[in-house]
Amino acid sequence: MDPIRQQFSVSYSYEVLFTEALFDTGNRLLSECLKTNATQQPVRLLVVIDQGVVAHHPNLIEQIQAYMQHYAGELELAEEPLIVPGGEQVKNDPVYVYTLQEAVARAGIDRHSFLIAIGGGAVLDMAGFAAATAHRGVRHIRIPTTVLSQNDSGVGVKNGINAFNSKNFLGSFAPPVAVINDKDFLPTLDDRDWRGGISEAIKVALIKDTAFFEYIEKYADELAPPTRADEPMQHVIYECARMHVEHISRYGDPFESGSSRPLDFGHWAAHKLEALTNYELRHGEAVGIGIALDCVYAHLAGSLDQPSLERILTTFERLGFDLYIDAMEGHLDDPAHPKSLFRGLEEFREHLGGQLTVMLLATIGDAIEVHEVDYGLYKKAVSYLKERVNSKAIKSNGILGLQV
Amino acid sequence: MDPIRQQFSVSYSYEVLFTEALFDTGNRLLSECLKTNATQQPVRLLVVIDQGVVAHHPNLIEQIQAYMQHYAGELELAEEPLIVPGGEQVKNDPVYVYTLQEAVARAGIDRHSFLIAIGGGAVLDMAGFAAATAHRGVRHIRIPTTVLSQNDSGVGVKNGINAFNSKNFLGSFAPPVAVINDKDFLPTLDDRDWRGGISEAIKVALIKDTAFFEYIEKYADELAPPTRADEPMQHVIYECARMHVEHISRYGDPFESGSSRPLDFGHWAAHKLEALTNYELRHGEAVGIGIALDCVYAHLAGSLDQPSLERILTTFERLGFDLYIDAMEGHLDDPAHPKSLFRGLEEFREHLGGQLTVMLLATIGDAIEVHEVDYGLYKKAVSYLKERVNSKAIKSNGILGLQV
Repeated sequence: MDPIRQQFSVSYSYEVLFTEALFDTGNRLLSECLKTNATQQPVRLLVVIDQGVVAHHPNLIEQIQAYMQHYAGELELAEEPLIVPGGEQVKNDPVYVYTLQEAVARAGIDRHSFLIAIGGGAVLDMAGFAAATAHRGVRHIRIPTTVLSQNDSGVGVKNGINAFNSKNFLGSFAPPVAVINDKDFLPTLDDRDWRGGISEAIKVALIKDTAFFEYIEKYADELAPPTRADEPMQHVIYECARMHVEHISRYGDPFESGSSRPLDFGHWAAHKLEALTNYELRHGEAVGIGIALDCVYAHLAGSLDQPSLERILTTFERLGFDLYIDAMEGHLDDPAHPKSLFRGLEEFREHLGGQLTVMLLATIGDAIEVHEVDYGLYKKAVSYLKERVNSKAIKSNGILGLQV
Repeated sequence: MDPIRQQFSVSYSYEVLFTEALFDTGNRLLSECLKTNATQQPVRLLVVIDQGVVAHHPNLIEQIQAYMQHYAGELELAEEPLIVPGGEQVKNDPVYVYTLQEAVARAGIDRHSFLIAIGGGAVLDMAGFAAATAHRGVRHIRIPTTVLSQNDSGVGVKNGINAFNSKNFLGSFAPPVAVINDKDFLPTLDDRDWRGGISEAIKVALIKDTAFFEYIEKYADELAPPTRADEPMQHVIYECARMHVEHISRYGDPFESGSSRPLDFGHWAAHKLEALTNYELRHGEAVGIGIALDCVYAHLAGSLDQPSLERILTTFERLGFDLYIDAMEGHLDDPAHPKSLFRGLEEFREHLGGQLTVMLLATIGDAIEVHEVDYGLYKKAVSYLKERVNSKAIKSNGILGLQV
């Protein structure tokens, strides 16, 4: 009997919207967004919020309830907003995904209703996975509250939690219905979270857009704590989010069936360093180190020139990033050791599948892919960063001593 | 700041292949299929098998190992095949999904490696969910071993497990890389599983294809146990699978973002009856009853004419289907009661989302959608089936007495 051939395409679209005072009853953005993406009224909603956000915005739950009350008849809160812990712990214990899935069942949220998640990248990753798997996918809106999630993790198509000692081992590709960035969440971030997300902007700038890197370089002192200027930060978030969104659709492989993932520049080391520090090092901080390491390596390998390397490292340092931690130098002579930074290369390869692909910078704004690396040279790159940081004594953020 | 608009399409394709003696070393189908869909050699594989299949084919594991040995260099078994229970129990306890995800991690199966599942629909549903969520999706091949999974559940794009007392509450849409139907698995099926899957063929025939219904009607006695003729069964499986596959792609909504699901004809009652009998009633048997019930209702509502109804019910009866069980008549006056068959209507609506949509037959080969039902008339339809079955005393399959 002849084979039966199946072939189809599925179209996805969503918007990343920018606003302030999202839950002010006068702000119709959310209500309009929900109605546009709904098939029925009132639109039924379940809301989950990051504990860290609630701590800094104690009136948020009341504001949300008042907002839904104001738009009663159009919007309907299925039950009280749920609160979950913020940060990586919410991805390390599967109970939170289970709790959200159970809430979807209990509250009668169906495939035409919405699960709205408000929080940092970890909460959004976790909630997105719950939304994607309950009823094989309920409608999902992300409201990212950190720089990192507003410009990077929150605007993409991936979700996930950690399992079996592997970051994002469980997850799916599931585009949200919308992403809403409210700038009013940013002032209450601590300095580490304000700063951390800028590393993802530097990442896309370095591999894609020289002018954007020059913008960040120019405004580094204003962006850095304690100044934390609003205007350049909004520009950095917008441009980074725009390039991230564009990248996903432009390269023809949004759900990553191939091997190349340019947006993972600097990430092999970052993921490993997060795990080595039990996630005390935050993702954005780890990405800063990962990029710095791969830039030094690219220079030592004869790719990136010295003045460009210096501009990159100096920009990170002016922003207040620590570019070295002690966990980096353990077991470097044994790349298979679970606590060796270099083990991160194989773990990274395995998670992506296929052959190892690492991006190396050629110049600021352009990168190449390599499929083999020189451990000896990477070891020198680690030493380079250690010596640089020690000589400059840039230890202000207290992460330098993080141990394995 | 202007909204950032994301828009892209993802293309999916796979083949449903037909063969016999799949793991005979002389049969290159699997090896070719794997190589065609792989990016690297050797192709790494993890295999999970339904306990029920192993019981009937005790040499299967050895055959698989010999096959992989024969194609060493091209194919590589990552570890011994895993055995999981067959039937609905494998979807009722989340430990099996967890076990497979853990095996993917342990065996180093990445997004370019394959998880192959061999078994009935329940095992395929469960394994497909594990494959879709580990590493955000490893490549997945389904080898269905029952009539039902070869002609219906195994050839589609859905997976899932049961949770929170709701069938398929957790799952995703994730097309396999290939489906391989080996007819040699069918002779060892018990009569209930041989027969059950035919109900899905009757389903697509009734809503789409008069001639296909007439074929099943013509060969009903040969298809039925004890004859169990191979040739008409192969035709029934092929046509049903072909129409199922075609339906998914043709109607523009393969991942079901809308409300209409014509392939769920007869399924609102079927899902509820499975739950009411703690899955002692098998899916195909339940679908037979569900279709019979909706056909009687359509007739009572003035839609389907009496001769057509009689042809449909008689065809089911000649195949040996029981069209009534006692669990159907409990709490019919209280549609909200958890043990009322009618509660299945709301549960069905909730799982699909949006408004209730039930398909009713207009004629053999054509159906219409309705969004409201008459409970009184449905109650009469239940009585109609009860009286018919009692008067004919067609109780041969031992499922008639299944109680809530």
